[in-house]
Amino acid sequence: MRLNIALLGFGNVGRALAELIMSRSEILHQQFGIELCVVGISTGRHGHIVNPNGLDLQRALASVQNGHHLNVLDGNLMLDTEQFIDGCKSDLFFESIPTNPQDGQPALGYARELLGRSCHLVTANKGPVAFGYHELSALAAENNVGFFFESTVMDGAPVHGVLREGLPGATVNRVSGIFNSTTNYILTRMEQDHLSFEDALSAAQAIGIAETDPSLDIDGWDAAIKTTILANVAMQADLRPAEVYRTGIRGIALQDVQQAASRGKRIRLVCEAVCSGDHAVTARVAPVEVDYSDTMAGITGTTSIVSFDTDILPRLTMIEYDPGPFTTAYGMLADMINIVRGRSDTRPVLR
Amino acid sequence: MRLNIALLGFGNVGRALAELIMSRSEILHQQFGIELCVVGISTGRHGHIVNPNGLDLQRALASVQNGHHLNVLDGNLMLDTEQFIDGCKSDLFFESIPTNPQDGQPALGYARELLGRSCHLVTANKGPVAFGYHELSALAAENNVGFFFESTVMDGAPVHGVLREGLPGATVNRVSGIFNSTTNYILTRMEQDHLSFEDALSAAQAIGIAETDPSLDIDGWDAAIKTTILANVAMQADLRPAEVYRTGIRGIALQDVQQAASRGKRIRLVCEAVCSGDHAVTARVAPVEVDYSDTMAGITGTTSIVSFDTDILPRLTMIEYDPGPFTTAYGMLADMINIVRGRSDTRPVLR
Repeated sequence: MRLNIALLGFGNVGRALAELIMSRSEILHQQFGIELCVVGISTGRHGHIVNPNGLDLQRALASVQNGHHLNVLDGNLMLDTEQFIDGCKSDLFFESIPTNPQDGQPALGYARELLGRSCHLVTANKGPVAFGYHELSALAAENNVGFFFESTVMDGAPVHGVLREGLPGATVNRVSGIFNSTTNYILTRMEQDHLSFEDALSAAQAIGIAETDPSLDIDGWDAAIKTTILANVAMQADLRPAEVYRTGIRGIALQDVQQAASRGKRIRLVCEAVCSGDHAVTARVAPVEVDYSDTMAGITGTTSIVSFDTDILPRLTMIEYDPGPFTTAYGMLADMINIVRGRSDTRPVLR
Repeated sequence: MRLNIALLGFGNVGRALAELIMSRSEILHQQFGIELCVVGISTGRHGHIVNPNGLDLQRALASVQNGHHLNVLDGNLMLDTEQFIDGCKSDLFFESIPTNPQDGQPALGYARELLGRSCHLVTANKGPVAFGYHELSALAAENNVGFFFESTVMDGAPVHGVLREGLPGATVNRVSGIFNSTTNYILTRMEQDHLSFEDALSAAQAIGIAETDPSLDIDGWDAAIKTTILANVAMQADLRPAEVYRTGIRGIALQDVQQAASRGKRIRLVCEAVCSGDHAVTARVAPVEVDYSDTMAGITGTTSIVSFDTDILPRLTMIEYDPGPFTTAYGMLADMINIVRGRSDTRPVLR
């Protein structure tokens, strides 16, 4: 089957996805019978272009990487994202524009628009999921399309895949873990290399895992957004990020890390959401001293971890070690494959 | 939809499954639209019975738990398993007879028979999967039915679910972990309570996690069988359990455990299968001294762990903490739900 796809967002994640699509085309064809045709690319600063006969992905990558506009490609230029969505005849959209932690916009609006037009949607953007999971899921079901978002938590590790496919009929009572890799990297450098908070932050910025304005990570917002997503998806809660009790790591000094170590403990930015029955969920993100014997103490650098406590498996834990540049993009590719395989449909298909 | 099911095997796992089916009937109906009707039960020592109109599961449980024959139920008695398979008109069979580590029989033959008759098959029995995975998968695909076996490795933790649904298109290069809980319990008791190997084994037998003849666990056979299954499923190898380099823990003395501890290490029965390209896989099971900082060192008691190293996620690890009596049965229930949802089909369904 041929699937027309469009890339809404062509930053680091979108471009890694484009490379993955090219390098895995044979596997997609042989293992899953999928032939992809990229009919639209929308960028933040290099224009928006559509072509129902397919765009030259290699050329699009080269153009944008060299800072050029997409107008060098064969296709029709669109004025803005709205016009792009309107003019792009794609079966499935990959959305990876930057996350807005206040209200998830404009991606939330784009998601409504796309699902409402019966387009499948794969997003790596935490905004629409944190602010609109229930609404968007219902909209996707109404329109009989897929709405998947594996890459919103722990990059491409199959966290949502496990919830959807691995724990059917089980009830999740608690979700916990370490979801923000920037703060975990900073804490690890402080404890292993005795860096001050400021120096560890600079080191994170130097290797490109912390932004110039690092407050989204440092103050726990990114972790709170991911905790919100897991609470709402795994426990059918209806939280918003601002409702998560949130303490970041800005106040943690090297001395705190060293004193914890002297007591056999490590400081981790622990995320937790607990259900006290009937979908009443309380969530928090805060630095916690965990014992060396705790699995979370062994989570260092950019590695991340999630645990699901359920009514049937007492605890199921997943760890994603050292994600690479393609892991987030891989989560989006896996979502696409799973939508094509009908995994967004949970109704019986037998008989 | 109504699904006729049959239980082939009614020991600890089969009976736990029966209880789960009863206690989760509302969830199965509400969340998945499934109504189950048990049309056959085959036991090792209490007879074989079929009834196309449904058997009284509660009564069957009570009978067998009290040591009685199933002939107290309404239905037609069958002489043996072969006649049971022939006479039981079930859409899906749950198979949980004991594992034969030599050749997987007679379960392997039953699996051929059932899949050849276009019955869906869910098995918790390691034998047929370790000795016939490729053959049985092909047979299931030919007959357009599901053949799932989540509970063969790490109880009901979604290990196979993650391979099938969470890592599509990825290539697994290495599988490793701790797959046998009896030996891990023994090693944990030796290191934590300074028990001799013999006393720790007796303790495992006392709580019912080691058999009277514990050689299958102690000598690494169970671990080798599970390693075979994962190598064949995750890396398309074609191993048999006897081809796994295998050393058990019979030779481990308390002194070894204590000397390892004095070097900051713990002894774990580590399972590993490594692909050196083109499905050429080497596998081994052996006691290994792992560093305290290794995640495997923190795996104590009956907890188990598996790691997949892939070409795209450098390492994905899953840990199942403290499985309860229903976790193996839950894996079978999850398999059934996933078969009903069409998850055994990987072909595109879009358009």
